[in-house]
Amino acid sequence: MPRGANLPAIAAFNETVVLDAVRRSADGLSRVEVAAATGLSAQTVTNVTRRLLAQGVIREAGKHSEGSPGKPRTILRLDPAGAYAIGVHLDPTVITCVLLDLEGVVVNHLRCLSSPDGDAVATLAVAAEAIAVLLTTQGVDSGRAIGVGVATPGPIDTETGVVVRPPLIPGWNDFHLRDELTAATGLPVLLAKDVTSAAVAERWHGPAGASGDYAFVYYGTGVGVGFVLGGSVYTGFTDNAVDVGHALVDPGGALCACGRRGCYGESVRPYRLVMQGLWAGILPVPPGLEIVAGEDAPLDVETVDALFTCLAAAAAAGDERAVEIVDRSIRSTAFYLSNLTALLDLDRVVFGGPFWTRVESRYLDQLPQRLAELHIDTLTHPTAIVASAVGDDVAAVGAACLVLDATSRREAKAEWNFEFYIPLTWG
Amino acid sequence: MPRGANLPAIAAFNETVVLDAVRRSADGLSRVEVAAATGLSAQTVTNVTRRLLAQGVIREAGKHSEGSPGKPRTILRLDPAGAYAIGVHLDPTVITCVLLDLEGVVVNHLRCLSSPDGDAVATLAVAAEAIAVLLTTQGVDSGRAIGVGVATPGPIDTETGVVVRPPLIPGWNDFHLRDELTAATGLPVLLAKDVTSAAVAERWHGPAGASGDYAFVYYGTGVGVGFVLGGSVYTGFTDNAVDVGHALVDPGGALCACGRRGCYGESVRPYRLVMQGLWAGILPVPPGLEIVAGEDAPLDVETVDALFTCLAAAAAAGDERAVEIVDRSIRSTAFYLSNLTALLDLDRVVFGGPFWTRVESRYLDQLPQRLAELHIDTLTHPTAIVASAVGDDVAAVGAACLVLDATSRREAKAEWNFEFYIPLTWG
Repeated sequence: MPRGANLPAIAAFNETVVLDAVRRSADGLSRVEVAAATGLSAQTVTNVTRRLLAQGVIREAGKHSEGSPGKPRTILRLDPAGAYAIGVHLDPTVITCVLLDLEGVVVNHLRCLSSPDGDAVATLAVAAEAIAVLLTTQGVDSGRAIGVGVATPGPIDTETGVVVRPPLIPGWNDFHLRDELTAATGLPVLLAKDVTSAAVAERWHGPAGASGDYAFVYYGTGVGVGFVLGGSVYTGFTDNAVDVGHALVDPGGALCACGRRGCYGESVRPYRLVMQGLWAGILPVPPGLEIVAGEDAPLDVETVDALFTCLAAAAAAGDERAVEIVDRSIRSTAFYLSNLTALLDLDRVVFGGPFWTRVESRYLDQLPQRLAELHIDTLTHPTAIVASAVGDDVAAVGAACLVLDATSRREAKAEWNFEFYIPLTWG
Repeated sequence: MPRGANLPAIAAFNETVVLDAVRRSADGLSRVEVAAATGLSAQTVTNVTRRLLAQGVIREAGKHSEGSPGKPRTILRLDPAGAYAIGVHLDPTVITCVLLDLEGVVVNHLRCLSSPDGDAVATLAVAAEAIAVLLTTQGVDSGRAIGVGVATPGPIDTETGVVVRPPLIPGWNDFHLRDELTAATGLPVLLAKDVTSAAVAERWHGPAGASGDYAFVYYGTGVGVGFVLGGSVYTGFTDNAVDVGHALVDPGGALCACGRRGCYGESVRPYRLVMQGLWAGILPVPPGLEIVAGEDAPLDVETVDALFTCLAAAAAAGDERAVEIVDRSIRSTAFYLSNLTALLDLDRVVFGGPFWTRVESRYLDQLPQRLAELHIDTLTHPTAIVASAVGDDVAAVGAACLVLDATSRREAKAEWNFEFYIPLTWG
């Protein structure tokens, strides 16, 4: 039900509108330009900017007189040190922690290992300590920290802040992550799926002027897809959207845990490519392991990571067997994306995640052509394939960006329990 | 870029908010209830309702005093005859035309054959004539007709109002449908994809209180999927979303025009089921046709329709070969939906379209179980499978609903060229 607009609500809304206008301008805006960009009257802009200046979230940054005959106008910019957001990415093996300023710039980051036995309480303590270290290192008073965004594997329950049953981290089943981390840090916490967070990071750090209709393919231990649709992150009915499910892309291909062969996730995950490389005899066999062609061997995450590097290097060096393994994953990806882009009419697909850069050049070289071969004439435009502008920390960065979104724009979700607008949280 | 709110914009916005509140109430609202529902002040509600009454879009409909000690309050309701919307569905063979009142109720409908040679100008003349007949029959002055929504197969170009290349209607390629129909009728026209329109019809006519996160599977000559996500119709970057593409659901299954076997659209379309029935010898062979098992025969749309009725009847009567043909399509649908619901985290899937009701009971009986067997543990809730509340005219009805949306809510798209708010169009 849409609500009508009374004056107090309009005042708060206009503050978010002005803050957003200033935030989105590359070189700052004068008050006159703010009025033009927002449609607000000069008097309202004066009042709103006075409040924002007093709260330290914008600052006056010089004057310009370009193109205007009158007296030079004062430029308003965001004060990046006005507030900070923290992002945490919980992965089966690694905890990544980032600190973003109000402009979304990553000012520091930190990585540490998760609790080896997957114990939730121990991992939580590590995360809380990492957050404290980041704030202290940067000299940021915790009163200037808006909150913590946590990216985790799904499914999650955003209403209760519970991690329901993340694959590969059984110790976290039904863990009340949001409340526990709030208790440990004294900061508001929001939960989001890792792939969703990655898509949001791209919205903040992607090329200026890019459209808001894209998928982010996160290439990590598994493969996941996040969406920004119509400029907003898409999370679904219970915020558990963006699982690639078991879409069939390679009939007769790799055997999946679901009992079928050739599911997208199974066909392209780094473990699968590494096993194919071991079967083909083009990768060094880890000590103590016996490799039988067609039979999966147990490989820990570090081993997969190291062997994936070898495989990518072999493919780059022209080893035909390595090239064929990578190219088969590219064909599978093209098939999946041909259906995804037809379904959602996406402008582009962005790739990223910790395993991405090692295969990036082959993917960017081959994938557009494979996709064009599958073109099915349902769209009026081609789909661009691009690499993310954000590095390996993309999920943690995106979780922190969600915190910035939650406070400065009307994208906050009620269950995130955030004050709507930054200054209100600062009494 | 979000815009700030100045007073004239707020006045128009508040009128749409009040109109929506009245529209959504089952039994009308008093002015006090309107204030409570919208958050507007009593004085603002009084002013806004006075304007809406003068324009004839709401009316006073009796009084009630339930639960309040003071004087009885006047109930405000939408005046259904205050304005009308027209919906047109252009199909390769049939033109469906519906007239909806301001409450979204279908007050009349009309069907006629498309131009047999697919000629765009001839078909357009038929559609314009059908619209005139509908208005005249109901005694509706064209000044009370808000506009025409046209549902067509994609891809379309909503900015220019052009039908780009609808499959099966080659004569319509690059036809300037919006401008031509505006010229022929003198009414504003908007274009939408047929499956998108069907999803919108369900939002208007589906069960009260149902969530706004669902897919609409349209079972017509082909199969299509439309989405309402987060309460809004999803149309994608260029409004060409919701093509099921060539998702693979039945390896080794039916041969698709794309050269692969077992694509979802090909596996379940009525023609394919009918051919399987002919090969199995359980359907009457049309005169002059020779049926060779495994070889497709040319069947016109009427023949497919009639034989599909026979096939569904045979399955309902317990013919095992007919049951197996229908059940195979159900298994294919379950496989497709298991991936779709994981990807988009949907609350429910709604089925409808002209071929749906004939297989409805078997689908509703079998599909939930087939879907549960494929459950992949990525969601925190089951997905409901339901039949649409709207009948065979669902795409035309939805196109008319889009017209109502465009005028009474902030869902209008700039390129639709609609006046934003009904009374403004009435000088």
